Amino acid sequence: MAKTILKSVLHQGNLCDILISNKRFAKIGGLTPKDFEKAKVVDCSGLAILPPFYNGHCHAAMTLLRGYADDMPLQEWLQNHIWPFEGKMKPKDIEIGSRLAVLEMIKSGTVFFADMYWHREQTMKVVKEMGIRATIGVTFAEGLVSEEAIDANFKFVQDHRFESDRVKLAVMPHSPYMVGEKLFKRCVKVARQEEMILHTHLAETKKEVLDCKKANGCTPVELMDRYGVLGGDFVAAHCVHLSKSDMELMADSSSAIILNPCSNLKLNSGIPKIPQLLDAGILLGIGTDGASSNNNLDMHEDMKFAALLAKASGRADTLPADEVLKMASFNTAVAYGVEGGLVKEGFLADAILVDLKNERLNPCHNLVSNWVYGADSSAIHSVICNGEFVMENRHVDGEEDIVREAELCAKRLA
Amino acid sequence: MAKTILKSVLHQGNLCDILISNKRFAKIGGLTPKDFEKAKVVDCSGLAILPPFYNGHCHAAMTLLRGYADDMPLQEWLQNHIWPFEGKMKPKDIEIGSRLAVLEMIKSGTVFFADMYWHREQTMKVVKEMGIRATIGVTFAEGLVSEEAIDANFKFVQDHRFESDRVKLAVMPHSPYMVGEKLFKRCVKVARQEEMILHTHLAETKKEVLDCKKANGCTPVELMDRYGVLGGDFVAAHCVHLSKSDMELMADSSSAIILNPCSNLKLNSGIPKIPQLLDAGILLGIGTDGASSNNNLDMHEDMKFAALLAKASGRADTLPADEVLKMASFNTAVAYGVEGGLVKEGFLADAILVDLKNERLNPCHNLVSNWVYGADSSAIHSVICNGEFVMENRHVDGEEDIVREAELCAKRLA
Repeated sequence: MAKTILKSVLHQGNLCDILISNKRFAKIGGLTPKDFEKAKVVDCSGLAILPPFYNGHCHAAMTLLRGYADDMPLQEWLQNHIWPFEGKMKPKDIEIGSRLAVLEMIKSGTVFFADMYWHREQTMKVVKEMGIRATIGVTFAEGLVSEEAIDANFKFVQDHRFESDRVKLAVMPHSPYMVGEKLFKRCVKVARQEEMILHTHLAETKKEVLDCKKANGCTPVELMDRYGVLGGDFVAAHCVHLSKSDMELMADSSSAIILNPCSNLKLNSGIPKIPQLLDAGILLGIGTDGASSNNNLDMHEDMKFAALLAKASGRADTLPADEVLKMASFNTAVAYGVEGGLVKEGFLADAILVDLKNERLNPCHNLVSNWVYGADSSAIHSVICNGEFVMENRHVDGEEDIVREAELCAKRLA
Repeated sequence: MAKTILKSVLHQGNLCDILISNKRFAKIGGLTPKDFEKAKVVDCSGLAILPPFYNGHCHAAMTLLRGYADDMPLQEWLQNHIWPFEGKMKPKDIEIGSRLAVLEMIKSGTVFFADMYWHREQTMKVVKEMGIRATIGVTFAEGLVSEEAIDANFKFVQDHRFESDRVKLAVMPHSPYMVGEKLFKRCVKVARQEEMILHTHLAETKKEVLDCKKANGCTPVELMDRYGVLGGDFVAAHCVHLSKSDMELMADSSSAIILNPCSNLKLNSGIPKIPQLLDAGILLGIGTDGASSNNNLDMHEDMKFAALLAKASGRADTLPADEVLKMASFNTAVAYGVEGGLVKEGFLADAILVDLKNERLNPCHNLVSNWVYGADSSAIHSVICNGEFVMENRHVDGEEDIVREAELCAKRLA
């Protein structure tokens, strides 16, 4: 049983030693000489341990499209730029794009992402190799794929349900406007049989809500209710345009919402109603969306946008630093059934170590406030996932090759 | 005459050599063997040159209050936390806080700031030592200081007008609610006599506008007009709550506005009306405000907030990447009369060098988009101000000591 000890690390204001054993935080402080036997001891002087980020909604391989088409209306963006580029992407390209995405996530303190994209085998492979966690979607979208491909997707779900302890599958119908009633209900049935998370885009734009009302006589959330989607295993991305009764439906059913504030603002989708969603008691996580709309996978940035937008449309005391950090870590982990997001005995050993000498973490009246409101990724010294270091002293194994390969791949596709 | 050559640097898509001479960009490309004589040659392979940031509104020494009081309503924040802490700050503390602020600015790519605070001598000293630029305010606020102190302030303005080529003075009446008609007019008169910029907080909160209408029968901008403040040498911070006719007054008088989006959101002051301000044709720059409200001095972050808020309240094509970068660099420089903000022959040699291997600058379909929307400070390799390197390979001389001293100082004051 592999043991690691983080020696002299600052944890919630106290200097202590932390024992990681069997991929979990086994002891925080109070270590005995016996704990040190056969343990790898890592000197963490000058570092503080904090929960890492869990990215609740992402399209990892789209990182190849970073900066490819910006500052234009949604339809022009999709039809004239994004779709033609994506049409050329082969499985190998998905692998290369996913690797750049995972590198970027590790470097900005993220150890988990929920991914909705194509050629999931490639993304799964990259996540396994690079040592972080993911819930990888088997994505359904009608019109874009054939009936046979849909059947093959369902077969894939059933064949791969016990993939690894770090990689899980989820059933991801793209959205109510890309997946009809029959297929959506089939997705729900299979997800519940296989005990998988159901994830979809929901109520992202005003237009989507208006179109849904016109076609179905109800809001997108009400449509999800009608399809039997809502529940503790349902996680919806965006949810910018929910009515008060939509919010009650989500809360009463224990459905979770992943906020994607940067993407919503950049694409002019709207400003998420964070104070109202908080008041409704909905489990709120945070995600970055894909790098073609954001244009990065930096959860710290989305966390700060969420915190500040909440205050702008609420009050100065809405969503304090510790609560928004919990949203971007623990809450998102809970939504996807990952026992992480807290540096606490018994929890999965996922964490970041921040450099207490970083100029933005000083002076240190309040470390969490400094981290949430003051810092950026340059303060992250190391990243731990599942008890292993995936970044040490700001370096990830092979990062130069990953960046170079992605650059060549994107040039070929552009 | 000191000469530096930036060798093999990427500039607007082309690899070239850049000659810096007499503190300015003397030649971009087309260098001859003669240019290399007696020049210090710096290898910039793998780096791109971009304009640096000019921070249009700041309270540098308040960096000592970073994270001291967050997530609370304005009055509680000011009266119970900020003012008592500030009351204890001595000139030496201002120096220590300013040094931490300048370090943070350099590390995040900023080479200029406009500062409104007390004990300006200390801040001026720090700026001169650390090699960047500043417009330092002589700050006026009635009630807080005596009649004699006000007279001493005006004397200081007249005694220090030709301070150095990097440090200028400006006349900074705090705001229309802290400075009455008589003193405001005296400020205007002296500023115009001495050819100095006039800078003030303006229309930051709804309450300020309502109070102003009640007391003066007009908006804060109309009051500025009445006092004779408006003009090409007037730079107003915040301006969150302007009416259409306020915007016309600002535009017609060639007055400039510094946006402070992070501070406005965090303190629940409101969301700046960026699309309307753009439409009105007002010169818009960007500032961070002080670290007690933001909580950092990272212009990149305020630039991204400005860009995304503009899109959220405008359209997806409002304020594209190159325009918002210009706002945070060239426009702010113009507002303060600094001949910088463009990497162009004849302009002051201020720049940042970004690391093209940084994962967020890849793939590189569009470097400016990657920098504005994708990157953070970790992509900045070096910073140049006035032809000199103030940061090389992510390190600033003495940074560890600066951070340590600020931490001790803040502990003493808290």
